[in-house]
Amino acid sequence: MRVCYKGRSEHFKTVSFEASRNEVVLIEQRLLPHQFKLVSTLDYRATARAIQDMVVRGAGAIGATAAYGLAQGAGAFRGANLERFAAHCLVVYQTLKEARPTAVDPVNAMNDVLAAMLVGESVEEKKALALSAAEEFALNDVRHCRGIGEQGAPLISPGIRVLTHCNAGWLAFVDIGTATAPLYDAHARGVPFHVFCDETRPRCQGAGLTAWELAQEGISHQIIVDNAAGFLMWRREIDLVIVGSDRVLGRTGEVANKIGTYTKAILARRHGIPFYVAIPMSTIDWETRRGWDIPIEERSEEEVCGAWGVDSKGRRAYVRIANPTSGARNPGFDVTPPDLITGIITPRGIFKPRELWKNRSVLKG
Amino acid sequence: MRVCYKGRSEHFKTVSFEASRNEVVLIEQRLLPHQFKLVSTLDYRATARAIQDMVVRGAGAIGATAAYGLAQGAGAFRGANLERFAAHCLVVYQTLKEARPTAVDPVNAMNDVLAAMLVGESVEEKKALALSAAEEFALNDVRHCRGIGEQGAPLISPGIRVLTHCNAGWLAFVDIGTATAPLYDAHARGVPFHVFCDETRPRCQGAGLTAWELAQEGISHQIIVDNAAGFLMWRREIDLVIVGSDRVLGRTGEVANKIGTYTKAILARRHGIPFYVAIPMSTIDWETRRGWDIPIEERSEEEVCGAWGVDSKGRRAYVRIANPTSGARNPGFDVTPPDLITGIITPRGIFKPRELWKNRSVLKG
Repeated sequence: MRVCYKGRSEHFKTVSFEASRNEVVLIEQRLLPHQFKLVSTLDYRATARAIQDMVVRGAGAIGATAAYGLAQGAGAFRGANLERFAAHCLVVYQTLKEARPTAVDPVNAMNDVLAAMLVGESVEEKKALALSAAEEFALNDVRHCRGIGEQGAPLISPGIRVLTHCNAGWLAFVDIGTATAPLYDAHARGVPFHVFCDETRPRCQGAGLTAWELAQEGISHQIIVDNAAGFLMWRREIDLVIVGSDRVLGRTGEVANKIGTYTKAILARRHGIPFYVAIPMSTIDWETRRGWDIPIEERSEEEVCGAWGVDSKGRRAYVRIANPTSGARNPGFDVTPPDLITGIITPRGIFKPRELWKNRSVLKG
Repeated sequence: MRVCYKGRSEHFKTVSFEASRNEVVLIEQRLLPHQFKLVSTLDYRATARAIQDMVVRGAGAIGATAAYGLAQGAGAFRGANLERFAAHCLVVYQTLKEARPTAVDPVNAMNDVLAAMLVGESVEEKKALALSAAEEFALNDVRHCRGIGEQGAPLISPGIRVLTHCNAGWLAFVDIGTATAPLYDAHARGVPFHVFCDETRPRCQGAGLTAWELAQEGISHQIIVDNAAGFLMWRREIDLVIVGSDRVLGRTGEVANKIGTYTKAILARRHGIPFYVAIPMSTIDWETRRGWDIPIEERSEEEVCGAWGVDSKGRRAYVRIANPTSGARNPGFDVTPPDLITGIITPRGIFKPRELWKNRSVLKG
């Protein structure tokens, strides 16, 4: 998407590859929304560190970063010995995998790259195949997001007021994003609308990342605290909710997403407001049988007890908000049941959550 | 309530009066939870400034402060001329009233003091009557909160897990508080229970003040972000919700309270969890006919776009969290309808919200 950078509006992707220098180029997301900066990782170890240290985050974005990282690691190999090359690639694969051990996207992305390399007969040929497979993964990520945009855009009627939670925008993917895709599509066609961004405590990805994205595109928006959506719905100031997801159960239609999503779905139901979840096919988990069984990460108390931002001098700073002798609970995700979800927007159509399973041949193919 | 202060556990009230020095003594609430400090206001103008600058906040607490402030202003008058004394008292009254022009409690409290002064025949007698009326107002505030505690304590069964929102604790009153009163009562009788404190963005009174209060009393508690209550209810980790209120409509049973209260009530209903509102009688508005007509204050964008806390050196500091080119909406309160409220806990019993009106003779008397 476009970013106003050094006084000019330019197009950027969250993740890209500079083949001539064998470097992965990333947006340094930890500095956003206060500073926009590109960083290059010079070798696969640095790429793994960038994933681990949250320079890059978001399902699609870390998938593509890992795929490029594997191609980068392969590309740096010296020599023509196929066995040594294979051993080297395995080390690269493991290093990148361990950078974010609970995520499924890097593994899936790297498996695509490894599968593509099987065909090559020489080291050089395999290097080229790895790179084109990584590029293909990244391109597919963009295609899927664009498909979500096309499927979801008809929901964005002129003048509509949309609520979104957390960041399922282009910064979480290679480009475009999922929950934001229908918005960007409609905006490109000149449809006027307004977005309310939940700030999304504790990490405030809505106030930081989603609001930054929408500001870059010139889309009308305002940030609200997570407490305020219910009031705005009661005042009939919200017409539609769209969120992303970390995992959708194909068997039940349950949706795991950032903490607070479930609450927004219950509020939407109380007020008769449609609630949509936008995802690429890779987010569907066809195995897990119950939402109750999805492991919910309990994150650090520090996130709840304070906040990161910039101080009056523009320096990154943490302030402690909470009583210093109190502890906190910090579940990172929640699970929304299918009865609260109007539809799942995928690149292959919008489905009722309970109808994913019977459409699995369409969605898996 | 007790505060561990200078190494000792002592009893403090939010507001008190030091008659020998004609000073109002306040807990400096802007420093909490990071520092506990008492401040004295030397004259009624300083008392008015303390109200205006939020040294003291909360319905009952600012009511008592204004009552003491009026007695303080009267007490400082030199001479025996009754006409000049009356004119002086009117200036004091106006100054204190204008310190928080939208609040109803200071006005009601000062009207009590003025009414008491009518009887006195000399300036000295009127000064004494003013002071005893102010003391009576503060004592009544404590009595009402104690009454709420007695009425509500049977709801706190052993092992129960209670959610509360914002701060309706003793810091918002002269002592004990409203939503916290049943908790303090049960705790004093040795009943074990656990409290989840919503942090209550944007001003975080839950994470700061309520958590601090509970910590002082040694009550088991944890802070959660406002997004997390839905998940904990789904996991069956919350059994009861108790909140305070800024205004309850006697005619309809609607409850205005801190933004986010309405959301918690909807969540409680979805999960079949009882939702109670604890108030003194003075919080009931017998005039307004519809919750929709309650004016909802739209507060500053700065509150939503950042957070106040203390930095790594323990200094009070603000960090900007949100994208700097984005704006915010910041409604300060919301309105919860009676169908979501299990009961209104008052010092005179627990009532169904729609039954306040028919019990108005009990509640007004």
